[in-house]
Amino acid sequence: MSTGAFHAPGRKSFGSDNHSPVHPVVMQAIMDANTGDAIGYGQDPWSAGAVEALKQLTGARGEAYLVMNGTGANVLGLGILLGRHEAVICPASAHIYTDEGASPERILGAKLLPVPTADGKLTPDLIAPRLAARGVEHFAQPAVVSLTQATEYGTCYTLAELEAIYSYCSANGVRVYMDGARIANAAAHLGCTLADMAQYADVLSFGGTKNGAMGVEAVVVMDSATTASAPYLRKQNGQLSSKMRYLGAQLGALLSDDLWRQNAARANAMATRLADGLASIPGVSLLYPVEADILFARLSPGHIAALQKDWTFYVEDEAGRVARWVTAFDASESDVDDFLAAIAATADA
Amino acid sequence: MSTGAFHAPGRKSFGSDNHSPVHPVVMQAIMDANTGDAIGYGQDPWSAGAVEALKQLTGARGEAYLVMNGTGANVLGLGILLGRHEAVICPASAHIYTDEGASPERILGAKLLPVPTADGKLTPDLIAPRLAARGVEHFAQPAVVSLTQATEYGTCYTLAELEAIYSYCSANGVRVYMDGARIANAAAHLGCTLADMAQYADVLSFGGTKNGAMGVEAVVVMDSATTASAPYLRKQNGQLSSKMRYLGAQLGALLSDDLWRQNAARANAMATRLADGLASIPGVSLLYPVEADILFARLSPGHIAALQKDWTFYVEDEAGRVARWVTAFDASESDVDDFLAAIAATADA
Amino acid sequence: MSTGAFHAPGRKSFGSDNHSPVHPVVMQAIMDANTGDAIGYGQDPWSAGAVEALKQLTGARGEAYLVMNGTGANVLGLGILLGRHEAVICPASAHIYTDEGASPERILGAKLLPVPTADGKLTPDLIAPRLAARGVEHFAQPAVVSLTQATEYGTCYTLAELEAIYSYCSANGVRVYMDGARIANAAAHLGCTLADMAQYADVLSFGGTKNGAMGVEAVVVMDSATTASAPYLRKQNGQLSSKMRYLGAQLGALLSDDLWRQNAARANAMATRLADGLASIPGVSLLYPVEADILFARLSPGHIAALQKDWTFYVEDEAGRVARWVTAFDASESDVDDFLAAIAATADA
Amino acid sequence: MSTGAFHAPGRKSFGSDNHSPVHPVVMQAIMDANTGDAIGYGQDPWSAGAVEALKQLTGARGEAYLVMNGTGANVLGLGILLGRHEAVICPASAHIYTDEGASPERILGAKLLPVPTADGKLTPDLIAPRLAARGVEHFAQPAVVSLTQATEYGTCYTLAELEAIYSYCSANGVRVYMDGARIANAAAHLGCTLADMAQYADVLSFGGTKNGAMGVEAVVVMDSATTASAPYLRKQNGQLSSKMRYLGAQLGALLSDDLWRQNAARANAMATRLADGLASIPGVSLLYPVEADILFARLSPGHIAALQKDWTFYVEDEAGRVARWVTAFDASESDVDDFLAAIAATADA
Repeated sequence: MSTGAFHAPGRKSFGSDNHSPVHPVVMQAIMDANTGDAIGYGQDPWSAGAVEALKQLTGARGEAYLVMNGTGANVLGLGILLGRHEAVICPASAHIYTDEGASPERILGAKLLPVPTADGKLTPDLIAPRLAARGVEHFAQPAVVSLTQATEYGTCYTLAELEAIYSYCSANGVRVYMDGARIANAAAHLGCTLADMAQYADVLSFGGTKNGAMGVEAVVVMDSATTASAPYLRKQNGQLSSKMRYLGAQLGALLSDDLWRQNAARANAMATRLADGLASIPGVSLLYPVEADILFARLSPGHIAALQKDWTFYVEDEAGRVARWVTAFDASESDVDDFLAAIAATADA
Repeated sequence: MSTGAFHAPGRKSFGSDNHSPVHPVVMQAIMDANTGDAIGYGQDPWSAGAVEALKQLTGARGEAYLVMNGTGANVLGLGILLGRHEAVICPASAHIYTDEGASPERILGAKLLPVPTADGKLTPDLIAPRLAARGVEHFAQPAVVSLTQATEYGTCYTLAELEAIYSYCSANGVRVYMDGARIANAAAHLGCTLADMAQYADVLSFGGTKNGAMGVEAVVVMDSATTASAPYLRKQNGQLSSKMRYLGAQLGALLSDDLWRQNAARANAMATRLADGLASIPGVSLLYPVEADILFARLSPGHIAALQKDWTFYVEDEAGRVARWVTAFDASESDVDDFLAAIAATADA
Repeated sequence: MSTGAFHAPGRKSFGSDNHSPVHPVVMQAIMDANTGDAIGYGQDPWSAGAVEALKQLTGARGEAYLVMNGTGANVLGLGILLGRHEAVICPASAHIYTDEGASPERILGAKLLPVPTADGKLTPDLIAPRLAARGVEHFAQPAVVSLTQATEYGTCYTLAELEAIYSYCSANGVRVYMDGARIANAAAHLGCTLADMAQYADVLSFGGTKNGAMGVEAVVVMDSATTASAPYLRKQNGQLSSKMRYLGAQLGALLSDDLWRQNAARANAMATRLADGLASIPGVSLLYPVEADILFARLSPGHIAALQKDWTFYVEDEAGRVARWVTAFDASESDVDDFLAAIAATADA
Repeated sequence: MSTGAFHAPGRKSFGSDNHSPVHPVVMQAIMDANTGDAIGYGQDPWSAGAVEALKQLTGARGEAYLVMNGTGANVLGLGILLGRHEAVICPASAHIYTDEGASPERILGAKLLPVPTADGKLTPDLIAPRLAARGVEHFAQPAVVSLTQATEYGTCYTLAELEAIYSYCSANGVRVYMDGARIANAAAHLGCTLADMAQYADVLSFGGTKNGAMGVEAVVVMDSATTASAPYLRKQNGQLSSKMRYLGAQLGALLSDDLWRQNAARANAMATRLADGLASIPGVSLLYPVEADILFARLSPGHIAALQKDWTFYVEDEAGRVARWVTAFDASESDVDDFLAAIAATADA
């Protein structure tokens, strides 16, 4: 990113949904929780309430665990499912593979098996060849498929696609982890419930931070037979919050009155508005369908450079030809329109 | 703990300094930071300001790193200092050894070498025998000493004791990590600056959570030659916060206007008040000098059980004869007096 | 050890049972296997035969895995039994805790929970307090007990003692690993079969190297339901030999015609002879019952120093007052008698 | 592999250079070492001699460490060079990436960054893009390049190619590990010394097992400033042999009188003979230049299946169209000619 030291106020950042502040309702819930004493490490009513709400929304018969960030959620979720000798099949574009500083390798000691994809999405056909390693003692054994919903490319698996993967995996003794850092955006796009998607995972995460929270994620274990190691791994992985009530308050606020869905729907709508506006700007093309709050756009390096003088966003390829734009839950129509105008104005650069 | 599901309102918890809510000034700082966009992962003015303040207060010429909890701070701090083949000498009572779910073993792959102590404090004489393993290839090599200031037993190293350990370690090629989860309490007790203590460590942590924050700790690397791995390990260990401004705001508030010291001083004073009051209650004796905000008291199992009916605290030994009482930054004189009255009233149980 | 660079020929080493050469029958088996091609990694008749023999001798319904050394065997054996969040209860004197360079911590990421013992032997009463950590999320969960048969102190568990531990552990959901680096010596001492002991373990190792082999150990999984991860962990841990036939040949030779038992019986007998001779030497006392091929003797530092001028053995305590003497499978009566004479002759030093 | 349970005697295996027995000279050296006592763990004249010989042949000013197998050598060699936060750039075809059961991930906790190559060989141009991750805290830091000489595809880096990589890496603060499982074959192909190649590595391995040994590899640290962790990591990784004299004897025999080179030269010559003969067999084509003892040949699945009825070798791709043939140090001209005749005879299958 070629911006200065800090984000310049006055223009909306299109850099990430974590550049946004905390949603006012979530902030109010934090303040409301700030009264009196509460036992630490989750033995408080806010945490208990958020866990219960998430279990109901996902249909989990297992348990939910609040953690502090996305890497923490992913490493915990995978660790719950993964034996010491096992490996994870994931898209080559998966956040766990590309952006987490080898946290899975460090903390789990596990190998990730990256699969190139067209759009960030796995399919049974893409998974199948990786299973050839099974039973051969020279290879870590592929045992978990990790998919991201919505994907890092801003695409979403349909429910039918999720069902196909889960059926294939279940039939082959493979378990499914769903990285739900943006699962709210997927629910909003698909018009489905969390349970509709969660039924096709063994363990999933629910991302609060990009959805308007200050910093909370959750790991949901669908089956009660799979929870035994989870609380201990959360502690071991450094993800057990002492004053957990503040995580509980955040998540509880998001899960009440469908706030999570409203926030996601707005972010998605702004992404669509941005995509629609781009259609009339020559020299800018989108790489993937826009199904969540992320757009990947190809434009000239000069165009990108000109635009970055005033606007905050990231360039994704080394040649400087692909920009990633993210429309957060608090982006407004005028934010998007201003950005579109700037893109158009710098198109000749 | 034999309390019910949640802490019952109406009585101060003496269970932990993390049972307390967030100090109002810290909460206000969080709210003040909740405006507009900010780049994630620490590239924001709140985080930068807190880092700078902490460097100034500790005299660090290296760098400071905000993390999310105490286990995260300790594992990061040790990992910065520790080679793959090296081990950590620590008191047998160290939080890293007893309470962190084998997080150091899991994430660092390192052995901890516990040393029994009388009062939670190491000395050169206690460290020396452990160095006999050096140069013998069958043993992980002791290379880092970890001490806790204030200790888990509520005692404090004097500056002279810290200097003796650091001199001994430096002369023997051993580096010193200082777990400062309650370093504010130690500063208040000793009447010294953070820099006075930090000069005797290579890496230390500063604990915010027990000092009135919502959830923030920091790892301070004293020497600029030691920082190379730190940012990558923070990410790898799952301790890099995306919306880091809220960590920065918390820590910044504590470090402004000596709030950290005021909070610690009050907690310490309440511990002293509690200790003073106990002197006149028969059948209750303290195990260690009261130099911070923690007291370990021996009393009869029946007495403990009676007291736990109404009050929240933890029993430390299996025989149910030792209670740990912690006086948080927000305890009042009347909280302590009420508790003392209850202790006295249940003394015949 | 204060000997010169290498062991001086002409006198038997009492330093370790791994100072001895390879038994001639084992060496002949190696040479006999050195003909023609054989598929690597265990798909050869020598390895298959040794595995089968070991399964029969131990009564294992699971599988046996040849590995290359004792640390490799122990880390594999523990890894088969241990979940990511679990910890190992072991005597404080266990080789896995004291002598393996933090290999269990590094490769397994697991915490070892050392228990002080009088004689290197655990009991249900010593194990029980460690189980108090169960169910508390701040602690790695104790799930495996590791015992060494014969122990590092040269003592042996009786079958009744093994049965008591195994019953207690089974009743409490804890699994038992038996470090059998010297299990042959224990069998010889107890006059029992391998199966008599193996029935009280879930996984055990069988040590060949100290028993006359060049370098081979085996991990035996008693139950077929526990073998799933074993072959992959063996590879992952770096213990899969390519030309495995030479491991198979060694172990096959030991397991044929009771060579393993004869070698162990001789080593034990020489230890007893040494102990008997020591009884008449003033100033030398034994620390533990002599039930295998190891003796720990207390004598004056001057005495030890004088003896080490000509004889190879190790000093165990920092004060230089405890010698460890090991009588290997190839020690002769005259070796022992010469050593006794030397001990007596230096007794005034 | 579709052979039966064991390799059928009577035909040479073309499956691997580890299917061969031990070279008679090496076996004699083992037998010669089998006399009297020797101190364990390398403090014996055979190990010392082999280490010294290897240091002289490679020009190492650091140290050499005997280990037990190739995975052990690679994980130790990488671990010596790799900080906790660092990652390894390697060809996607590297043995460490494809065949070692995630041992590097498990034991080192490190990420491997696979680079697709045409022929198993890295170049500065292939390495450069991976360095873009440097300085970005979300990514494990690429710090070591691992190359295999000869490669897993049977190709060899020229000295000029090695020099180019090493110069590039040194200029960019990256260190070079050379997996020398078949470095003898590369020396024979290039007509150079070990030192000629070793000068372009910071740490390398020397493979004995495929070169006629029973089971020994060595890790060579070129620079004395890099050895500090090595002996401890060898122990920690489970690669410290107790009766190390037998490893020393094997390696010493190979390194005496250029036996290592003669063995490699014969293996290479047989590979060339096989390649030459294939030229006249229709329907069989080689994928890579034949520069060591490995050939990858494309032929029809039916042809492969017919050939595997009588001959031992491995099929490399899932479609069954690529065979890997290895010509060991003990292959004879008639072995090759018989195999060629069989290939020709089954060409219509």
